[in-house]
Amino acid sequence: MEDLKSFTYFIEKEIAEFNFPNSPENLYEPLRYFLKLGGKRMRPILTLLGGLVFDCDIEKTKDAAIAVEFFHNFSLIHDDIMDEAPLRRGTSTIHEKWNQNIAILSGDVLLVKAYQVLSSYDADTFKKLMELFNKTAIEVCEGQQLDMDFETRNEVKIEEYIEMIRLKTSVLLGCALEMGAIVANANQNDKELIYDFGMNIGIAFQIQDDILDLYADPEKFGKQVGGDIIANKKTLLMLKAFEMSNEQQLKDLDELLANKNPIEKVSKAQQLFNEIGVHQACEIIKENYYQKALNSLEQLSVSDEKKAPLKSLALFIMQRDV
Amino acid sequence: MEDLKSFTYFIEKEIAEFNFPNSPENLYEPLRYFLKLGGKRMRPILTLLGGLVFDCDIEKTKDAAIAVEFFHNFSLIHDDIMDEAPLRRGTSTIHEKWNQNIAILSGDVLLVKAYQVLSSYDADTFKKLMELFNKTAIEVCEGQQLDMDFETRNEVKIEEYIEMIRLKTSVLLGCALEMGAIVANANQNDKELIYDFGMNIGIAFQIQDDILDLYADPEKFGKQVGGDIIANKKTLLMLKAFEMSNEQQLKDLDELLANKNPIEKVSKAQQLFNEIGVHQACEIIKENYYQKALNSLEQLSVSDEKKAPLKSLALFIMQRDV
Repeated sequence: MEDLKSFTYFIEKEIAEFNFPNSPENLYEPLRYFLKLGGKRMRPILTLLGGLVFDCDIEKTKDAAIAVEFFHNFSLIHDDIMDEAPLRRGTSTIHEKWNQNIAILSGDVLLVKAYQVLSSYDADTFKKLMELFNKTAIEVCEGQQLDMDFETRNEVKIEEYIEMIRLKTSVLLGCALEMGAIVANANQNDKELIYDFGMNIGIAFQIQDDILDLYADPEKFGKQVGGDIIANKKTLLMLKAFEMSNEQQLKDLDELLANKNPIEKVSKAQQLFNEIGVHQACEIIKENYYQKALNSLEQLSVSDEKKAPLKSLALFIMQRDV
Repeated sequence: MEDLKSFTYFIEKEIAEFNFPNSPENLYEPLRYFLKLGGKRMRPILTLLGGLVFDCDIEKTKDAAIAVEFFHNFSLIHDDIMDEAPLRRGTSTIHEKWNQNIAILSGDVLLVKAYQVLSSYDADTFKKLMELFNKTAIEVCEGQQLDMDFETRNEVKIEEYIEMIRLKTSVLLGCALEMGAIVANANQNDKELIYDFGMNIGIAFQIQDDILDLYADPEKFGKQVGGDIIANKKTLLMLKAFEMSNEQQLKDLDELLANKNPIEKVSKAQQLFNEIGVHQACEIIKENYYQKALNSLEQLSVSDEKKAPLKSLALFIMQRDV
């Protein structure tokens, strides 16, 4: 994935050079700060790849890529407030470093900036980009709301959970890719296929996230293993555990949820989940979405050579261990 | 202003019929609730008028009008969080009735909906609308940030204050009118003139707001007279009072700021401000912006008959006593 590094560098440079005004400082300094925190830049890279598949140069897709990254960061800034998260990528969140009002408002302005960046495209392309972007932005907000709703609900069905992560996380990956394809003027069928590829990879990616919480190598993972378990989060692992349990295991699960000792809780979860067979069951669901994604990629009307970077990216995402 | 009533009715009906999804309920129910609270609907009416001046039917400008009203409500929802305001139009704010996270997220989704409503226009019109809308949205956020910054600053110059209210309030009135003109395909000069008309009326409107805080008829006003004084807000009245005071009056002003008795504070402010001549000075500034607005209106390349509704609206805004 040598190319990925050069794309990441390209995106980092574009973001670093983006010309936010200097004043009001309390509005724009938080954005400069937040956008410098880095991250994988996965979404804007998908937009660049979505263009390249259809022979469109990254110089042409870069504004769409920046818009997607701005949107993603807007949603992180507001999600961090909602989750009362003190840290993002090991550094203070905006509401921690400044205050909550500044985090709300700088998030708002970043969302508008995302729209503004898109207006560099000609009117027809712009309108097509906007339609997809708006639909996706609304879905992401809906996903975030469902996620918050699930916290206080007793029962969440696995289909509901998958739909929540589809909205909250995965549609933006599909959107990122399709925006590249829109700029490249790809045909309707290809646009739908590349969107589906991104969306399904996104679902698989999020399931992998849930799995890693409990099954990552602690030495590589960089964050606390079992964080979701300690917080009693309704992840796919937990929902699947409830679904697959026999009567005794259901009792053990209830006991697990009531356990207040973090270290013991995580180790008991691993034991119980292994007994139930949760890990394997989740791997099967993940693999299913991964195959759906590959299937869409297969059908794209471009050469295998052109598809190769997307295929490696998908594999890279699936095999990640951090 | 008989027409105004029919326009208000038209806008109310359009908003009431707007089809928000039912789910997630915690995302859309707050929006249905908030948009029902009413208000003067001044901004969308300006968009309708901005089209009518150039012979464009309200059926064509209504989506732009709705987008402006959605944007305005998005900014109210988020401002209410920032101001910790429990009430809006006498009823609970969203963060009070639901919670803060829901207020952040439903505000976000309303902003996106504003953009989405605009995409009913053809690509060229849409792009023109978006460019103005984005520029304005960013300015409104900047104005809100400046307003928050001023709260903790010791000194604020009158030019800075006017620039703050221009950004926070007035540019959206200019934008609302120009969006109507854009849909009507008005020429560039007319678009700039109608924008300037709206912006300057907006500044005069906001100054009138500051004046009414202390000089409204308590029987008609419907809210506490002197609320800004009690909160030590740096309104134009207060800034002008400091600017015009002699040494003794400056001491009296400092004493006034330290006074913790609300009723006494307001009556002392009225006395002191009258002595300094604050009311008249502010009326002169307001009148200046009103005249600028009329001057732009005068130059519009349409008949006086076409301009008449805008002229009456301007007069109506200036003479309001609530």
